[in-house]
Amino acid sequence: MPNSAKPDLRLGIAGLGTVGIGVVKIIQRHADLIAARSGRRVVITAVSARDRTKNRDADLSAYAWEADPVALARRADIDVFVEVMGGHNGPARAAIEAAIAAGKDVVTANKALLAHHGHDLAIAAEAKGLLIRFEAAVAGGIPVIKALTEGLAANQIRRVMGVMNGTCNYILTRMQSAGLPYDQVFEEARQLGYLEADPNLDVGGIDAGHKLSLLAAIAFGTRVSFDAVELEGIGAVSIDDITLAADMGYRIKLLGVAQMTGRGLEQRMTPCLVPAESPLGQLQGGTNMVVLEGDAVGQIVLRGPGAGEGPTASAVMGDVIDIARGLRLPTFGQPATSLATPIAAKTATPAPYYLRMTLLDKPGALAKIATCLGEAGVSIDQMRQYGHLGVNAPVLIVTHKATRDDIDHAVGLFAGTGVLVGKPVVLRIEAV
Amino acid sequence: MPNSAKPDLRLGIAGLGTVGIGVVKIIQRHADLIAARSGRRVVITAVSARDRTKNRDADLSAYAWEADPVALARRADIDVFVEVMGGHNGPARAAIEAAIAAGKDVVTANKALLAHHGHDLAIAAEAKGLLIRFEAAVAGGIPVIKALTEGLAANQIRRVMGVMNGTCNYILTRMQSAGLPYDQVFEEARQLGYLEADPNLDVGGIDAGHKLSLLAAIAFGTRVSFDAVELEGIGAVSIDDITLAADMGYRIKLLGVAQMTGRGLEQRMTPCLVPAESPLGQLQGGTNMVVLEGDAVGQIVLRGPGAGEGPTASAVMGDVIDIARGLRLPTFGQPATSLATPIAAKTATPAPYYLRMTLLDKPGALAKIATCLGEAGVSIDQMRQYGHLGVNAPVLIVTHKATRDDIDHAVGLFAGTGVLVGKPVVLRIEAV
Repeated sequence: MPNSAKPDLRLGIAGLGTVGIGVVKIIQRHADLIAARSGRRVVITAVSARDRTKNRDADLSAYAWEADPVALARRADIDVFVEVMGGHNGPARAAIEAAIAAGKDVVTANKALLAHHGHDLAIAAEAKGLLIRFEAAVAGGIPVIKALTEGLAANQIRRVMGVMNGTCNYILTRMQSAGLPYDQVFEEARQLGYLEADPNLDVGGIDAGHKLSLLAAIAFGTRVSFDAVELEGIGAVSIDDITLAADMGYRIKLLGVAQMTGRGLEQRMTPCLVPAESPLGQLQGGTNMVVLEGDAVGQIVLRGPGAGEGPTASAVMGDVIDIARGLRLPTFGQPATSLATPIAAKTATPAPYYLRMTLLDKPGALAKIATCLGEAGVSIDQMRQYGHLGVNAPVLIVTHKATRDDIDHAVGLFAGTGVLVGKPVVLRIEAV
Repeated sequence: MPNSAKPDLRLGIAGLGTVGIGVVKIIQRHADLIAARSGRRVVITAVSARDRTKNRDADLSAYAWEADPVALARRADIDVFVEVMGGHNGPARAAIEAAIAAGKDVVTANKALLAHHGHDLAIAAEAKGLLIRFEAAVAGGIPVIKALTEGLAANQIRRVMGVMNGTCNYILTRMQSAGLPYDQVFEEARQLGYLEADPNLDVGGIDAGHKLSLLAAIAFGTRVSFDAVELEGIGAVSIDDITLAADMGYRIKLLGVAQMTGRGLEQRMTPCLVPAESPLGQLQGGTNMVVLEGDAVGQIVLRGPGAGEGPTASAVMGDVIDIARGLRLPTFGQPATSLATPIAAKTATPAPYYLRMTLLDKPGALAKIATCLGEAGVSIDQMRQYGHLGVNAPVLIVTHKATRDDIDHAVGLFAGTGVLVGKPVVLRIEAV
């Protein structure tokens, strides 16, 4: 319960890029509001960034300056170390380790760092009774870590899904709305500044995979296991598939799915088809969406901005205010020492699949493909043969529910038919 | 931080209807999961309901029985009083007051009680350092109280919107999809058991208005002010308006909106038009949706089941687990003694309006109506005149942004034209 006698909560902020400056601005703008809600004042003691001389969109003159984030983390006059530098090794990691060693709670927006080192950091923090909070690391301004860890804490989580990389969703929805090929929209996105310095972090699904691995740890009480995420980026998604999928009532999304099965934990971040009229299917542009499914609650859908100064700073400050209010939870919702090591399971939950292939224009070609599917135990829900362009016929097949292994088996058999041109496109249709 | 030495958290559950039994089932099914996440065991000590002999879908034999919920609330062997009886006066209120007097934290799903007496109860609880938690009272399984109070705590909230009565949304979407009139769908809903014993709680907007008033208190730091909610139910929504609105790209929803303006706090729960392609416009059936807008985060949309055993019990147990974990916040997010008494403002935020009227088939009739709008300072965005049915012509007008006062002024002027048949339908178009 708030108590006006509580001392100020003193922050050290490492990183003065978009997010760091966003945090500074919120604290300056809403000092009284935050105090009313927290029961104490939240103040900035010191900040750190690479370049002190850079012109920044906030007045930092009242704060001590540390050139070295590790030195900032160790300052005696901070209670919480706010890490918004980014990078999964190097200074960010060293500074968080220093903060924990020095007895500071940590708030971070660093999904890459936590996906790789979150478990070890949580062990270290919890051994000293310290917090690592990371709402801003997943889905920007959407309070999804809180919803999953706290709001849905009485549920056995069945499945977590999410569109959590705004750049990929921008590219895919722009391809569809403008009818443009991937390469052209990718170039647009680059020029708009939507891509990371290493674009593969975005379009390769790595960034979104980091986020998924953090949600999975909380949802299933398992150690973060990013290496076990099946990753497939959007670089191979063609405008043909987007158009044909739309024609059949679907949208293609870079969709993260984590679920615990009898065989182990499935985690995948791959292009999937989802029904066009579902909330995920309707998600346009850079907005993020996370779907949480629990045995008691059913399905909860959260939608909001996945990036940007205000949304990300809002999430960082939500964590800071929780600390100011005295909420103290283990990093992943239960003690890190109690998290199980998950058995990584290759995706084996059956689903319908979308197959697109080109067949030689020979009599019986389609029958041969259908026979292969039958041999692999895969039954066909819909099949469409499009008008012949030259000598070859594009064919679209939507299967009934099948395992990925059975689909791969069928596709392997296709090769022996002698009617297939090139490689088939295989996309999972996720029931949402 | 969880500590295995923490004593059990002991619950007394008053009310063994759908929600109460749902809570019992979760505790029985997930005892270990809850203990892992809470750092302590959550147990039921005693229960209470009107009829002990009733056959219930759970084994209650391990729990003490109290015929009187007030006696349950006072038991020395409970820590948390869980009130899921319902009713805004009588036993529920008396029992919660007794629980507070006896030093117990309270978890309730009772929106009516809190809308009427929440402020006084919060004052009483906080004077003793006790909690009143009510996630289940608003939007069922959606953790919206948590998102607003905690996740978005660093934001000045600009607007809160919500479709928070599943029965009304079922009726409106069913009217549209089946092309049926209100009375017929209302009767269907009654037969399906979707309506409260007093259906006006649902279709009159009262239940949803209770929920809106609770969200507004948290969002704007003001005392709960249910009496100031502008209430208009869905009983007057005609299938004609639903069809015509759809034709123009809109859906009609019973939409709650709360926003703080320079004139004071606007709270309304009224049928509104929203764009068909917006998340609110796409919401079908009994699902609930809440939209939270903050100055830093932008817009967050939360969607999920608004009622039912599992979802409501999930929300109750989320609160219980928060208490088990040691999270202690004031009822409305800041001390009740610091909540301002809001100035109730009649809706004056400008918006486009939808007007439907029938005009006599006389030359210049439409021009006269247009002149009235012009005199009242209301400009026209779209006007559609539908094919004449008999002698009179239905006319549809969508205005540019105008205040409700200006619209009412214009409608007053219509009466003097002598061309109007009956009363015009006036519906606000809320920008979402």
